[in-house]
Amino acid sequence: MSADPRLLPDDLRARYRDLLARWVALPSVAAEGRAQDQTAEAVATELRALGLDVAVHATAGAPVVFAERRVPGAPTVLFYNHYDVQPADPVELWTSDPFELAERDGKLFGRGATDDKGQLASRVVALEWLKRRHGGALPVGVVFVVEGEEEVGSPNMGAYVDAHRERLQADACVWEFGGVDAHDRPQLICGLKGIVSIDLTVRTGAYDQHSGLGPVVPNAAWRMAAAVASLRDAEGRALVDGFYDRVRPATDAEAAYVANAPREDDVVAANVGVERFLGGATGAEWHRRLQLEPVINVNGIHSGYGGPGMKTVLPVAAMAKLDVRLVPDQDPHEILGLIRAHLDRHGFGDVASTLAERPEHPSRVDPTHPWVRHAAAALEEAYGTPAVVTVSSGGSGPLHPFADVLGLPVVMIGVGHAQGRAHAPDENVRWVDVERGTYATVRLIERWAGVEPQG
Amino acid sequence: MSADPRLLPDDLRARYRDLLARWVALPSVAAEGRAQDQTAEAVATELRALGLDVAVHATAGAPVVFAERRVPGAPTVLFYNHYDVQPADPVELWTSDPFELAERDGKLFGRGATDDKGQLASRVVALEWLKRRHGGALPVGVVFVVEGEEEVGSPNMGAYVDAHRERLQADACVWEFGGVDAHDRPQLICGLKGIVSIDLTVRTGAYDQHSGLGPVVPNAAWRMAAAVASLRDAEGRALVDGFYDRVRPATDAEAAYVANAPREDDVVAANVGVERFLGGATGAEWHRRLQLEPVINVNGIHSGYGGPGMKTVLPVAAMAKLDVRLVPDQDPHEILGLIRAHLDRHGFGDVASTLAERPEHPSRVDPTHPWVRHAAAALEEAYGTPAVVTVSSGGSGPLHPFADVLGLPVVMIGVGHAQGRAHAPDENVRWVDVERGTYATVRLIERWAGVEPQG
Repeated sequence: MSADPRLLPDDLRARYRDLLARWVALPSVAAEGRAQDQTAEAVATELRALGLDVAVHATAGAPVVFAERRVPGAPTVLFYNHYDVQPADPVELWTSDPFELAERDGKLFGRGATDDKGQLASRVVALEWLKRRHGGALPVGVVFVVEGEEEVGSPNMGAYVDAHRERLQADACVWEFGGVDAHDRPQLICGLKGIVSIDLTVRTGAYDQHSGLGPVVPNAAWRMAAAVASLRDAEGRALVDGFYDRVRPATDAEAAYVANAPREDDVVAANVGVERFLGGATGAEWHRRLQLEPVINVNGIHSGYGGPGMKTVLPVAAMAKLDVRLVPDQDPHEILGLIRAHLDRHGFGDVASTLAERPEHPSRVDPTHPWVRHAAAALEEAYGTPAVVTVSSGGSGPLHPFADVLGLPVVMIGVGHAQGRAHAPDENVRWVDVERGTYATVRLIERWAGVEPQG
Repeated sequence: MSADPRLLPDDLRARYRDLLARWVALPSVAAEGRAQDQTAEAVATELRALGLDVAVHATAGAPVVFAERRVPGAPTVLFYNHYDVQPADPVELWTSDPFELAERDGKLFGRGATDDKGQLASRVVALEWLKRRHGGALPVGVVFVVEGEEEVGSPNMGAYVDAHRERLQADACVWEFGGVDAHDRPQLICGLKGIVSIDLTVRTGAYDQHSGLGPVVPNAAWRMAAAVASLRDAEGRALVDGFYDRVRPATDAEAAYVANAPREDDVVAANVGVERFLGGATGAEWHRRLQLEPVINVNGIHSGYGGPGMKTVLPVAAMAKLDVRLVPDQDPHEILGLIRAHLDRHGFGDVASTLAERPEHPSRVDPTHPWVRHAAAALEEAYGTPAVVTVSSGGSGPLHPFADVLGLPVVMIGVGHAQGRAHAPDENVRWVDVERGTYATVRLIERWAGVEPQG
């Protein structure tokens, strides 16, 4: 009786752990600009060891690690990943040092374990495994783009893709994240929302006033509260004129995937402690909202006194932060303009609105594309259960330059899991997902290239 | 040619400075519970030196200094003052040590210089002056109530007055504050607003969520913004059902004082940096709103991220602080109930509302009362210009127990000025106001008691 072919060979398992341990030890926190050159070089070293031609490209921000190996007559897969991580704060909530890989209960812990160093390590090990299964050579061409600013909104990725368009030519793309859903079903995501982050500020005078003047002196806290409240209703529907005008209707295939998505709201409700979702959404409607609806989010609002007891003050200044999640074909700059017009029309001309970060366009890949179908089949083979095809994540990222500018079909699959605590203390990846997810990547490439392992 | 009789004798001027210097040196910050017994004792010492019978009464909070000297056949004046002060923060914005009296440019600087140690010193010096003008004896009976918790909402004053009702019998009352308005006209205030301070809080789940979940997960920042926005309109009018039902119409005399109040909005607009007041109010309408309109103030609102750049988070918790300024005959507890009903009716049943401090009832004294008329005449005599009779301050205080429970006519006059920076760094009192204000107190008592100085 032969061993399960899906099991990662012991030496590749050790290789995965070793790669991840070395990368986790580098505190490449993008928001703090730390260890960028050093981590880019560490990634470049491993891609060179795979036999790829590697270059570290300067950008206006952190360097991009570019690597390629074309195979004549075979298609090329582009891997988009990032070597930067979120800050480790609050450090005191970590069970062990965030920058020292630790193993407990079948999991590997450390900052970047799942986002995104653990995913990149899986791609590297998958390619080593592929070489072994195909006589020592890669059966397809590969290109890597590993950036260092994903966690701060990839401000230089659009320009990078524009500048290197020729060298980035490929036939399909594996995105930087993916894994199993809250029910441990393999998930295959085909799109990302766009995002436009907006700072709102208002100032009503020279300095805070005694609240005895309240019947005559304007109140910045109320003005900001009212401006923010006016943007959406209690069920989350935007009230900004024209906001939904460019929302592209779902295709039949997209609508079918959403309608047939297995229920997830129940376990998410329990995890996040929510009794009722917006609009009372459950089942397929919950998926439809999450995947296909744009939304105006309030990330924060601050004005005036927030301490104990009372302080009889009329605050002179207030601020709020919004992120607006967009779907095709909404345009971030047009949405910013619509929100500005809304504020002006509703008497909030004094509430200033500015971009907090470079916006990202929404993008979706056709879920009926062969690349997506091969990925679904590879996932079912690796996990023994059908893949959950998800039309769009609720999250955002620089998908637009790859899917729309380069025109690549993209799949988001990987080694993550729903309790992987990306961005949070005790970030982790599970060995069981490393096994299954890496094998799925191997099988996706073999199936798509039409090659089967030798021997 | 005799000297101006209004001028404070040199030795009383020195006495004022000495009293204020010793009291300012005691950091009796109510919010921090500092130096309470020590300051009460220092005040008691000076009132004993005036020949009064003094007792320091314990309360549930800081002690109250009580003093009295009845004069058979003469009426009795009750002085309400407080020995506590606001915190000195931000200390770095003071030109000199807040707890060391400093003299610059005809002003005395220090925490409490105008609120309220400088006013209390003026009352003491006025009584010493009165004794000198009347053969060494006070021409009227006097009672002092000097509390130590005014700056934290006088939580124990109502109970104190109830408990000592018999000993507090008097015929008229001089309130703890007063002075000249922004145009240096002597002001005579006859009422205070009530106040009810309310904490609003909301929690929408177990912990903050990634904002990719925004189309389905409730947003605490939006919910609090919308709840706060729903309470009033852009011009400051309350939208709470029943809010105005118990507002007592102004009497003819009150309406006439408001209609004839000299313009003040122009200089206030310049001082506070406001281009347009709520409702576009100017002139008499500005006074009407300030004196006769109740209002719901937002002191602060806080939820979620407030730092630089972006953080794609759905905040799980939000808070806001309100103070509601009331006019007769609004009841603080009824108003709290109306706001609760409003929130429930508008879909904000999850927004909790609790009292932040013990509320205060609104109160107004009849401006045609002889005590008020004598005060206006005394002010005109001291300042050489007519007094501005103000039906109500926009501020609040424990007037209700004195005006309504004890039934005293009350006037608010004193040595303050519009740039005295009460509660702020570089709090100060001007020598010119100490001269005029102290003389006005002397003359009020002489006119009201029908006695003229001897010799």
